[in-house]
Amino acid sequence: MWLQRRIDLAARPRGFHLVTAEVVAALPELGALRVGLLHLLLAHTSASLALNEDASPAVRVDFERWLDAAVPEQAQFWTHRLEGSDDMPAHVKASLLGQSLTLPIADGRLALGTWQGIYLCEHRNHGGTRSLLATAWGESGGSEGD
Amino acid sequence: MWLQRRIDLAARPRGFHLVTAEVVAALPELGALRVGLLHLLLAHTSASLALNEDASPAVRVDFERWLDAAVPEQAQFWTHRLEGSDDMPAHVKASLLGQSLTLPIADGRLALGTWQGIYLCEHRNHGGTRSLLATAWGESGGSEGD
Amino acid sequence: MWLQRRIDLAARPRGFHLVTAEVVAALPELGALRVGLLHLLLAHTSASLALNEDASPAVRVDFERWLDAAVPEQAQFWTHRLEGSDDMPAHVKASLLGQSLTLPIADGRLALGTWQGIYLCEHRNHGGTRSLLATAWGESGGSEGD
Repeated sequence: MWLQRRIDLAARPRGFHLVTAEVVAALPELGALRVGLLHLLLAHTSASLALNEDASPAVRVDFERWLDAAVPEQAQFWTHRLEGSDDMPAHVKASLLGQSLTLPIADGRLALGTWQGIYLCEHRNHGGTRSLLATAWGESGGSEGD
Repeated sequence: MWLQRRIDLAARPRGFHLVTAEVVAALPELGALRVGLLHLLLAHTSASLALNEDASPAVRVDFERWLDAAVPEQAQFWTHRLEGSDDMPAHVKASLLGQSLTLPIADGRLALGTWQGIYLCEHRNHGGTRSLLATAWGESGGSEGD
Repeated sequence: MWLQRRIDLAARPRGFHLVTAEVVAALPELGALRVGLLHLLLAHTSASLALNEDASPAVRVDFERWLDAAVPEQAQFWTHRLEGSDDMPAHVKASLLGQSLTLPIADGRLALGTWQGIYLCEHRNHGGTRSLLATAWGESGGSEGD
């Protein structure tokens, strides 16, 4: 079974945002997969996807704080400044965290760790709507009798 | 062919550890895949997986040294401090390196580069046992006569 | 359908290089996939793959500048110095960006975002030829009537 679908994520402020529930809700067909995988590609170069702690909002605040310190907007070495001081750092942040995730599916559900959630990491001040291309594949199959 | 199996990795000290042999030994069925892929998800948010040099132990020492300098435990900006000074940096390190790997299989073997090995990157002082969910898929098939 | 092929990328200077066209040209069979994925593994530990802005060359310059500042060759903490001052930083940079990409295919084409291109990130001063192992899989199928 193959499924491919574009999912548009509403615009969010700069920072880290949990989107697990929104992604899963857009893909009800995952329930038919006994075993498989879900691939997500964020079709942008200044935002990223990550998998991390989904319980404490402070963790998401600190991700933003660390990234802002590690990839400083005011560094003298940037040459690509045309699109604003948040633009080039956003490109670097996007590739540090990555724009895609591949996640296992077991018995019709995303098989993540207990504390793992999908983060949309918005690195621009005004990033706007972000598009995901979701591709799922695997073996469908009834779990007979249980 | 699809295979999905949980692999429990024994607790290791903070640092970088080669686990290629341990992962392969837990998945003897890979030998039947003529062409395919292996996906590994580490089901945690404070440890990670990486692919890097498997020969010199000094490389693994230096990974730890660089990460400790780049994501300092004593930075003033951390707000998530409840679980110890090694916790929030461990979350950041985990997403920098990533918690999953997708690796090609050719003729029944992991098709890595000559020097590539799978690292378990333990970012907590006392991380305990770590669980991997391994998913493999591909085409089985005999290589007749050669 | 499964396809697996080694692609040798010509030696390039240290820095970031767009290789999207070169990779696609080496894989004409992708045109037969209605839906699928392409996995690329760079079989090295001192170079990496990334997905980022393919329009402005200044973006690629700034990636190199940021990485050189973030992973300094002259840091006192490196212990692995035998292979030159660019070697250990190259290992770290390789795992920060990652040595593999998984990319969706739709209607016979790589389904990347408008501005996304594949970067070969060469972290050594003289890295030489770099090998990719490309694995593609998916559903072939005619688009009847359109």
